[in-house]
Amino acid sequence: MSPMTPLIDVHCHVAPSTFPRAPHERAASQWPCMHATGSSNTLMIGDRPFRELDDRSWATARRLEDMDRDGVAIQVLSPMPELLSYWLDPTDAEQLCMHSNEQIARMIASAPGRFRGLGAVPLQDPERAARLLPRLRREFALSGVEIGSNIGGEMLGNARFDPFFAAAQEEGMAIFVHALHPVAAKAVAVSATFSALALFPLDVAMGAASLITEGALERFPRLRIGFSHGGGALGAILGRLDQGWRAQGSRGRSPSEQARTMFFDSNVYDATYLRCLASEIVPGRVFLGTDYPYPIMQRDPAVFVDSIGLNEAGVESIRYRAALTFLGEGAHRSE
Amino acid sequence: MSPMTPLIDVHCHVAPSTFPRAPHERAASQWPCMHATGSSNTLMIGDRPFRELDDRSWATARRLEDMDRDGVAIQVLSPMPELLSYWLDPTDAEQLCMHSNEQIARMIASAPGRFRGLGAVPLQDPERAARLLPRLRREFALSGVEIGSNIGGEMLGNARFDPFFAAAQEEGMAIFVHALHPVAAKAVAVSATFSALALFPLDVAMGAASLITEGALERFPRLRIGFSHGGGALGAILGRLDQGWRAQGSRGRSPSEQARTMFFDSNVYDATYLRCLASEIVPGRVFLGTDYPYPIMQRDPAVFVDSIGLNEAGVESIRYRAALTFLGEGAHRSE
Repeated sequence: MSPMTPLIDVHCHVAPSTFPRAPHERAASQWPCMHATGSSNTLMIGDRPFRELDDRSWATARRLEDMDRDGVAIQVLSPMPELLSYWLDPTDAEQLCMHSNEQIARMIASAPGRFRGLGAVPLQDPERAARLLPRLRREFALSGVEIGSNIGGEMLGNARFDPFFAAAQEEGMAIFVHALHPVAAKAVAVSATFSALALFPLDVAMGAASLITEGALERFPRLRIGFSHGGGALGAILGRLDQGWRAQGSRGRSPSEQARTMFFDSNVYDATYLRCLASEIVPGRVFLGTDYPYPIMQRDPAVFVDSIGLNEAGVESIRYRAALTFLGEGAHRSE
Repeated sequence: MSPMTPLIDVHCHVAPSTFPRAPHERAASQWPCMHATGSSNTLMIGDRPFRELDDRSWATARRLEDMDRDGVAIQVLSPMPELLSYWLDPTDAEQLCMHSNEQIARMIASAPGRFRGLGAVPLQDPERAARLLPRLRREFALSGVEIGSNIGGEMLGNARFDPFFAAAQEEGMAIFVHALHPVAAKAVAVSATFSALALFPLDVAMGAASLITEGALERFPRLRIGFSHGGGALGAILGRLDQGWRAQGSRGRSPSEQARTMFFDSNVYDATYLRCLASEIVPGRVFLGTDYPYPIMQRDPAVFVDSIGLNEAGVESIRYRAALTFLGEGAHRSE
C-alpha cells in the first residue's frame, strides 16, 4: 500500500480533564472526579481510583503527534466507557454525558479534519437518549454515539431500547458498541484483569448476538452499528446461531447475514483471527480500532493491518473505507 | 480421503432410560426421572420436563446404524450434561453420576471397539471427584470424564479444583469440558434458546480462559483437556489474552501457546470458522464432535469435515488423530 493511504482509527478514547461537582449527595459515590498531583492524574469514581490518565485523554497536541507518527489521518473519539454512567439517575447521567460530548466537540473543532466524534447518551432512559441524538449531531457535530455492550445488565436486543435505535437510524447516527461491565462478572467472582481480558469480548459478542436473535437489525435495517474488540467473540459463534435459526424456521436473514451488515473493529491483537474475520467472516466490515491511548492499545497500527495478509481491497477497507461507511461518509469518498 | 479413513465422534451424548428414585425428599425437585408414554420419552428434572429423548440415548442398535450410515467408526459417549448434577449434594450426585457411568460402561461392552466413554463425577466436591477417577477407569473402562464449563457457577481455573485435575493427570483420564448452565444466564433474563445458542459457546470460552489465566495448564501440563463447541469463542479472544499476558510480564507460556495444548471439537456449524480454528489457531488439536443425538447435531459429519478445505494431514487429524491423542490412544496408532 502507498504510505499515503489514510488510516482511520475508530476506537480511540477521551476523558475530560475536569468534571462538574456531583449534583447531589446520592450521586457522589458514582461520580467521576480527576485527582491531579503534579504529573499524575487519577480518574476517581467516587472515592475509588479508576484509572491513571495523562493529557492524551483531553488535549490534542500529543494525540496529533502520535497520529502523525502512526500515519493515522483521523481518530474517531469516544468517551472512556466508564463515563457512560448507566448506573446514575438519567438526569444526572445526561449531565455527565453532555460534559463528555462538549469535550469531544471541542477536540474536533481544535483540529479540523483530524477527528470525528461518537458521543454519550443516558441509554438507561431510551426515550431521553433518543431525544438527545439530534442535538448531538447539530450542536456537537458528532457522527454517532458509543454505547455499552449491555445497558445496566440489560441485553441490547431488549425491545425497550427500540426508541433509541429508531432515532439513531432516523438521524443517521452511527452506534459503536463497547464492552462495559460484563454481565457474567455480576454472577461470578473474577478479577478486574480477567474481566477486561476475557469477559469484555464475550460481553460484546453477547450484546451483538442479542441484537441479532431479538431481530433489532431486522426492525432497523439502515442502522450503522459497529462493535469493539472485533465484535468480541461473535465471529466464533455465528455458525451456532445460524444452526438455531434454521431449526426455528429460517425466517428473515440468517444471523451470519445480519452480522455482515454490522461493523467490527480490528482490536483483537491477533493477525490470524483478524484475517479470518476481515477476509472471510464479515468481509469489508472491519475498520481499524486501537484503543488509544490506553496501555493495552494496538501499537503500530499501520504495520499491524498491513501485515495480516489481506488483498489490496481488504487493506483499503480496514484502513479507511469501512470506517467511512460506518460514519456515514462513504458516499463522499466513493466518487 | 479414502472412505475407509475412520471417523471418531468425541461429542455424543447418552442418558439412562430409567433412574433410581430420589434418595430423599430434599433432592426430589432436582432429581431426574424418565416419563415414558408409548413412543414418547420425556426426561423430567423434578416435575419440570427437560428434554424429549428416544432410544438412541440409551440403546445401541439405532446408534450403531447411524454410525455405520455416517461412517463413524467410534463414538465417545458422555452423559447428557444436565445429568452432571453439580446442584445436588455430593453424595446424591455421586449416586446419579455412577448410574450414568454404569450405563456408558454397558454400552461400551455391548459393541466392542465401537465406543469409548467419558463419565461423570460430582465435581462440586473436587476431592470426591478425584477419588472416583481410578474406579471410572478400572471398573467402567472409561477414557475420561465430561465436566461443565463452570461448576455450579465457579470458574474452572479456581484452585479448589486442583485435586481433581491432579488426579486426572495422574490417572491419564481425558477431560471433556461441555457447556452447562452459563454463568451469564444467572445475571440476565434470557430465553433457554438464547442461552443454548449464544451463551453455551461463550461459557465454554470463559471456562477455558480461566484455566489459562489461572495457570491450571501450567500446574498440570500433561492434562488432556478438550472443549465442546469448538472451544466456544476461545479462538476469537486469544489475541487479547496474549496482549494482557505480555502486559503482565510474559511469564510461562502465552495463552495462545497454552490453547495449542488443549483440544477442541468441530461442533461450530461453520466451515469458515472451523477451517480457521483447525488450520491456523490450534492446528492439529480439533477433533470431530457432532452433539449426537440431539436435534441441533451436525449432520453428515464426514461431508462436513471433508468440505472445510483442510490439507490431508488436517483432515486426518480432525477425523481421528486428534481424538486418539485426546483419548490417550495416540501412541498405539502412530506406530
